Amino acid sequence: MKPIQVGLLGIGTVGSGTYNVLTRNQQEIRRRAGRGIEIAMVADLDTARAKSLVGEGVEVVADARAVIANPAIDIVVELIGGYGIAKALVLEAIAAGKHVVTANKALLAVHGTEIFEAARAKGVMVGFEAAVAGGIPIIKALREGLTANRIEWIAGIINGTTNFILSEMRSKGLDFATVLAEAQRLGYAEADPTFDIEGVDAAHKATLMSAIAFGVPVQFDKAHVEGITKLQAADIRYAEQLGYRIKLLGIARRQEGGIELRVHPTLVPAKRLIANVEGAMNAVVVQGDAVGTTLYYGKGAGSEPTASAVVADLVDITRLHTADPDHRVPHLAFQPDALADTPILPIEQVRTSFYLRLVVADEAGVLSRITTILADLGISIDAVLQRESAEGEQQTDLIILTHETIEGRMRDALAKMQALPTVLAPIVSLRKEELA
Amino acid sequence: MKPIQVGLLGIGTVGSGTYNVLTRNQQEIRRRAGRGIEIAMVADLDTARAKSLVGEGVEVVADARAVIANPAIDIVVELIGGYGIAKALVLEAIAAGKHVVTANKALLAVHGTEIFEAARAKGVMVGFEAAVAGGIPIIKALREGLTANRIEWIAGIINGTTNFILSEMRSKGLDFATVLAEAQRLGYAEADPTFDIEGVDAAHKATLMSAIAFGVPVQFDKAHVEGITKLQAADIRYAEQLGYRIKLLGIARRQEGGIELRVHPTLVPAKRLIANVEGAMNAVVVQGDAVGTTLYYGKGAGSEPTASAVVADLVDITRLHTADPDHRVPHLAFQPDALADTPILPIEQVRTSFYLRLVVADEAGVLSRITTILADLGISIDAVLQRESAEGEQQTDLIILTHETIEGRMRDALAKMQALPTVLAPIVSLRKEELA
Repeated sequence: MKPIQVGLLGIGTVGSGTYNVLTRNQQEIRRRAGRGIEIAMVADLDTARAKSLVGEGVEVVADARAVIANPAIDIVVELIGGYGIAKALVLEAIAAGKHVVTANKALLAVHGTEIFEAARAKGVMVGFEAAVAGGIPIIKALREGLTANRIEWIAGIINGTTNFILSEMRSKGLDFATVLAEAQRLGYAEADPTFDIEGVDAAHKATLMSAIAFGVPVQFDKAHVEGITKLQAADIRYAEQLGYRIKLLGIARRQEGGIELRVHPTLVPAKRLIANVEGAMNAVVVQGDAVGTTLYYGKGAGSEPTASAVVADLVDITRLHTADPDHRVPHLAFQPDALADTPILPIEQVRTSFYLRLVVADEAGVLSRITTILADLGISIDAVLQRESAEGEQQTDLIILTHETIEGRMRDALAKMQALPTVLAPIVSLRKEELA
Repeated sequence: MKPIQVGLLGIGTVGSGTYNVLTRNQQEIRRRAGRGIEIAMVADLDTARAKSLVGEGVEVVADARAVIANPAIDIVVELIGGYGIAKALVLEAIAAGKHVVTANKALLAVHGTEIFEAARAKGVMVGFEAAVAGGIPIIKALREGLTANRIEWIAGIINGTTNFILSEMRSKGLDFATVLAEAQRLGYAEADPTFDIEGVDAAHKATLMSAIAFGVPVQFDKAHVEGITKLQAADIRYAEQLGYRIKLLGIARRQEGGIELRVHPTLVPAKRLIANVEGAMNAVVVQGDAVGTTLYYGKGAGSEPTASAVVADLVDITRLHTADPDHRVPHLAFQPDALADTPILPIEQVRTSFYLRLVVADEAGVLSRITTILADLGISIDAVLQRESAEGEQQTDLIILTHETIEGRMRDALAKMQALPTVLAPIVSLRKEELA
């Protein structure tokens, strides 16, 4: 049988990885898929560079629409990124009856509902394994491997740049700005790292996972997003003393009355496997009611790891494109007519425990006033660490770990504590998850 | 649409878990699968107990063949175990045109070729996610998630009983027999634990993974199998001092000229995530040429974790049973006509590094004679640890870590070292894997 014909839109890092993997492992992939998979056409504005990357037999064009218009192309792989032209091209490819594979988490987290509906109406598939956690087959695990389960929560290190920065801050005791500069020099962070360090990229991925886990539409606009730019080396040290590590987690959790969807720096017990995921690696923990805790670990970015996910989708489509569309795996794991309207909860209603660091005057009665505020709001304390003040110092660090509470209540407590004259600096407040 | 009708053969631990999960999560599962999944019939010799476990609407019979003969049953779930009657029933179910789901690793590792061929000829599916690593969707990851890759190796903690025993031996400094008795008391080890502690169960699972990873037939008879019964507390301690933990690993590795397939206690660097998998948990590391290192972690046994995998297979079959059989995912990941005859290598040809513990006379020249034997055979030394002998002692422990070599060559070296008059006791030799 003639190999299935693939057209690439964009041949940057992931595109060239996809070409290389498909070429190098073509025999192995054909033995699995029962049919060859071949990149027949590539669209890239830099046609000279594109030509230098692919073999003689591949047609290179500057115009992406020429790929979509080519009737010989079965699957279009969108690797342009962003919400703009990528969205138009994905919708046009679907309209032209092409199956689509994309690594574009931003596009799907924001416009997924429109795109999946267009694909359903046209009877084509949209594969997006590469959009979350690079080469780790987490979309497949959630969508197919854990179908027996009522998923309770997901917590993932799903941005390699920030995990690299946090690992370096901890192991070398450096501050954020210094490590960010190093990460940029090493190529782990982009020249404009905003999407990574502000948590936006992780929130795109958490949004996709929340939809698949709970059977709700993608709702990126409802996600609570905090990055790591304000994180201080002192808090990483104190967390470590208390048996915790700080990781930027994307969390989606089923909660009474709704779903939590949030990205923020999080204290995690140091003994958990996920706390020991270092450098640019990714890992996702999934808690299901039947299976219990499972974890998936691997490279979350990079040319060939991401290509591994793109090609897995190509093989899935090659195997399944002749199947009755109603019996394929639904894009968001649940049948389109079975999505729920469970709300995404505002951050004030999120349940979590907290790490607080207060700079307080070193005098009698300070701890009592603070603990009274917490007690009055029903927030119970798990541990207190008071640094002994140095000779002649008039202030000291007071660290408090709380038990679980509602975020809104903690905000009240923070406002009251901040107003105390003996609290001498802005209180640092970080969320803590036991992941047990 | 009428729910798909499932018949259970055997309702023990996993069977009752399957019934409970399907009942409790029936709405969620229907929302995913697009169709209900219902246990309509159960066969178990203890019909009274079976009736007490399932609802009114489920027909309970003593004769498994009545389930297979029932034309209303779409899928037969075999949870009897073993090679005997289970084999006959699986083949009869296939002959009757039923899809089959089984957790029976022993059956498939030994008779898989016959069973998968019968299923292919009849156009039915045999799901066996539950046969390896319980609830971890590792079969799906290997068979579908990593299809882009040339798999290089797999190393897994795939037997919870032995991992529990090894964890306890290490953390409490106890010997094997003491911990085994405790594991039996706690229900982590069976009354007859032979299959677990001798590595047979892990070898069944490693055999299945090797076939899926490398596109070869299942060949349990070629696997090299060693258990943990001879492991001594002293070696766990020495390994720890050298930065290693001892785990019972199932390993399948692509090697020049063939495939390594082996189960044995293995030293693993303590800093690897898999070295930190404790208690009855399972984890599998997969190394692919494109994706790099990935790891999958979760509960490898138990009622509902295993049921999670059984039900995932039921959902897959519900989604795919109307698809053209030629386009379904092949049982062994590779198309049946594309399996390779790459040989499984005899253990003498396996490449690995070693941990050696020699009890030697405390006198000059001992180390030199030993290192000369190793050097003459081209085995290079990575580290040496010589315990200082206690006052008045005439002997001491000498620990040697080697670099990678061929097992056959190490066997020659062991025979020569053992023959030295200054080597006073049988040499302990354990394999070591860096998993890098």
